[in-house]
Amino acid sequence: MPCGTLGSVKGVPQDILEELGVEILLGNTYHLYLRPGAAQVRQLGGLHKFMAWERALLTDSGGFQVFSLSQLRKVSEAGVEFRSHLDGSTHLFTPESTMEAQISLGADIVMAFDECTEYPAERGRAQQSMELTLRWAERSKKYFEAHKHEAPWALESAELPQGLKPTSLANVSEGAVNQIVPRGFSENREPRTENFPRNSKLETRNCTQALFGIVQGGMFPDLRRESAERLVAMDFPGYAIGGLSVGEPRALTEEVLHATLPALPKERPRYVMGVGTPEEIVRYALMGVDMMDCVLPTRAARHGLLYTSEGKVNIKNARYAQDPSPLDPNCGCRVCARYSRAYLRHLYANGEVLAMTLNSIHNLAFYLDTMRRVRHSIRLGDISALYSAIQSRA
Amino acid sequence: MPCGTLGSVKGVPQDILEELGVEILLGNTYHLYLRPGAAQVRQLGGLHKFMAWERALLTDSGGFQVFSLSQLRKVSEAGVEFRSHLDGSTHLFTPESTMEAQISLGADIVMAFDECTEYPAERGRAQQSMELTLRWAERSKKYFEAHKHEAPWALESAELPQGLKPTSLANVSEGAVNQIVPRGFSENREPRTENFPRNSKLETRNCTQALFGIVQGGMFPDLRRESAERLVAMDFPGYAIGGLSVGEPRALTEEVLHATLPALPKERPRYVMGVGTPEEIVRYALMGVDMMDCVLPTRAARHGLLYTSEGKVNIKNARYAQDPSPLDPNCGCRVCARYSRAYLRHLYANGEVLAMTLNSIHNLAFYLDTMRRVRHSIRLGDISALYSAIQSRA
Repeated sequence: MPCGTLGSVKGVPQDILEELGVEILLGNTYHLYLRPGAAQVRQLGGLHKFMAWERALLTDSGGFQVFSLSQLRKVSEAGVEFRSHLDGSTHLFTPESTMEAQISLGADIVMAFDECTEYPAERGRAQQSMELTLRWAERSKKYFEAHKHEAPWALESAELPQGLKPTSLANVSEGAVNQIVPRGFSENREPRTENFPRNSKLETRNCTQALFGIVQGGMFPDLRRESAERLVAMDFPGYAIGGLSVGEPRALTEEVLHATLPALPKERPRYVMGVGTPEEIVRYALMGVDMMDCVLPTRAARHGLLYTSEGKVNIKNARYAQDPSPLDPNCGCRVCARYSRAYLRHLYANGEVLAMTLNSIHNLAFYLDTMRRVRHSIRLGDISALYSAIQSRA
Repeated sequence: MPCGTLGSVKGVPQDILEELGVEILLGNTYHLYLRPGAAQVRQLGGLHKFMAWERALLTDSGGFQVFSLSQLRKVSEAGVEFRSHLDGSTHLFTPESTMEAQISLGADIVMAFDECTEYPAERGRAQQSMELTLRWAERSKKYFEAHKHEAPWALESAELPQGLKPTSLANVSEGAVNQIVPRGFSENREPRTENFPRNSKLETRNCTQALFGIVQGGMFPDLRRESAERLVAMDFPGYAIGGLSVGEPRALTEEVLHATLPALPKERPRYVMGVGTPEEIVRYALMGVDMMDCVLPTRAARHGLLYTSEGKVNIKNARYAQDPSPLDPNCGCRVCARYSRAYLRHLYANGEVLAMTLNSIHNLAFYLDTMRRVRHSIRLGDISALYSAIQSRA
């Protein structure tokens, strides 16, 4: 899932994302809550409509950014009081308020409000943090269940809210409008199709967002298993593993995943938050991870670090100044089809906006192509060949 | 002609420019000379190949930027000595050296090296500057005629330079390769088609770039006429009017144009450099101007100033924060087809890269659509209606 932070994947327009085959984007509740504001997005029909994205969206709860971006954080049982990194204003995030914000934004998948345990953390601290996250998960779920029908697009009546238009007028039957664009999951947790449909046919079933729980527990396998089991007992439609990629060595990340994944039900999405490199995402996918998100492809792109089938390319390097060849001879993206390394280097060296755009498009194409190959290998049952092929690309 | 300064229209990829119907881009010799360097671009096959742009290109001579951007300029008969705005290094631009640079870059149309007379300038100063420009025009043309066959794409033999590939292998006949992508004008000054063809059929005619002369003379109609007549006597395939839009009141701009245009042959392109607003470009086109270039659509876009059929929109304004309507209801561009004013405002207010891209796409669409309407009106002979319609859009 590429990161669309403030309702935009930096420098990449939505139609390019569609063309790349992006099926789901991540939006950051922390950022959108501050600007333009969750209520404002609700008033405009929700985040999908606001950013003109018809495919799936997932919002995180804001918990992570509160810890990583803001100043003067004060954690209590109620939630987290923090100062905005933008203007220093004070805010309070609670499980209830972040659920409210996420319902207003209307993403297909929303995340329980958790405490992302810092690294390193001693066992006592990790346990206390895990317990807090579990109590917050209960409160998140309670609020969500009571208010999930209030998503901007989840209508009970035929009345269209101001500004919303049906995507397909041909299918509108009088009085049968229950939803403008089908979103989310039905009550029995059936996703509409395997790949988050772009089905604009109006349906009369009442659909809602899906709330995922987040496993914490620091780097302690037994705490992780306990956290997972207690979340599963709360019966979420999907489960995330948080608190990883926070500075720990990779070996520890994998140890935690090995301990945690078996405790989460296979038949529901298992989502590892905030990972990873091309090599990591393959490894974790082959371990059974279904969803991942990371700023790496786009952030690295903005720093001129490009992933290719022949290894990493640091495009600012002078060696590319006269290189007429495409960035990646094995890549079919529009950047590699058209532009030379020399031109990409020139754009980056001169701080051109186009550098950001083209680099991001390529890195996203690389990541998405990587996952496509993983899915293909899984279907074919031919995993080992894929794995060693990817190893060389890291 | 949108401005592609350093080989890129800031934030807008080449395929979008093609989709917008851009037929010709302007590249700045001053900037490209400094980075990556004219020789470097030559080595990569010329500017078209470097920036992967198959349509037409025009380069200015560097004269204007030397005056507007660099420090410590010293003008002599030889040329202009200046310090780079990037790193303070010293350089000398002469008619010969800027012709050499432009031949290396390989744009379809190149400009004589001129002195852009400052405003205001007294008559004596304007006359002296005009005379210098005419002497430089002679030297530009002399050098150009002696070296024009050295453009990176103007081949005499069948041997392909390193890196260049024929655009259509089907049409390659052994030994008949005279040019990879037809460029420029034939010796009898016939442009290939009306609209700068994308004809990839290989031709055996020997083609070169076209050098345009530039009229100066300050704000003095008689000097302008003299400058024009003496340039026409040198017989250029096209003529530009420089030294306008340099701070003078609009009435004076028009006075100079009224004095100068009749002195330039109607059957050759007449190009006014550095203009203008949507209203201006219509006025000047209806006065007989054939070509114009301006940073305004893209620069204004980057500052959130958007041109619409209902007037200028300053997208950062709070009044758009909840506006779900498209930017311009009468615009068919991809931005107006998809995104709301509220979203565009959000992007701009948060310094998102996508703001720059989307705003530029729209403003370019607006400018190009404006000129399309001018051409249509001219063909239909229905100019007055167009003129009053455009007036309201200024």
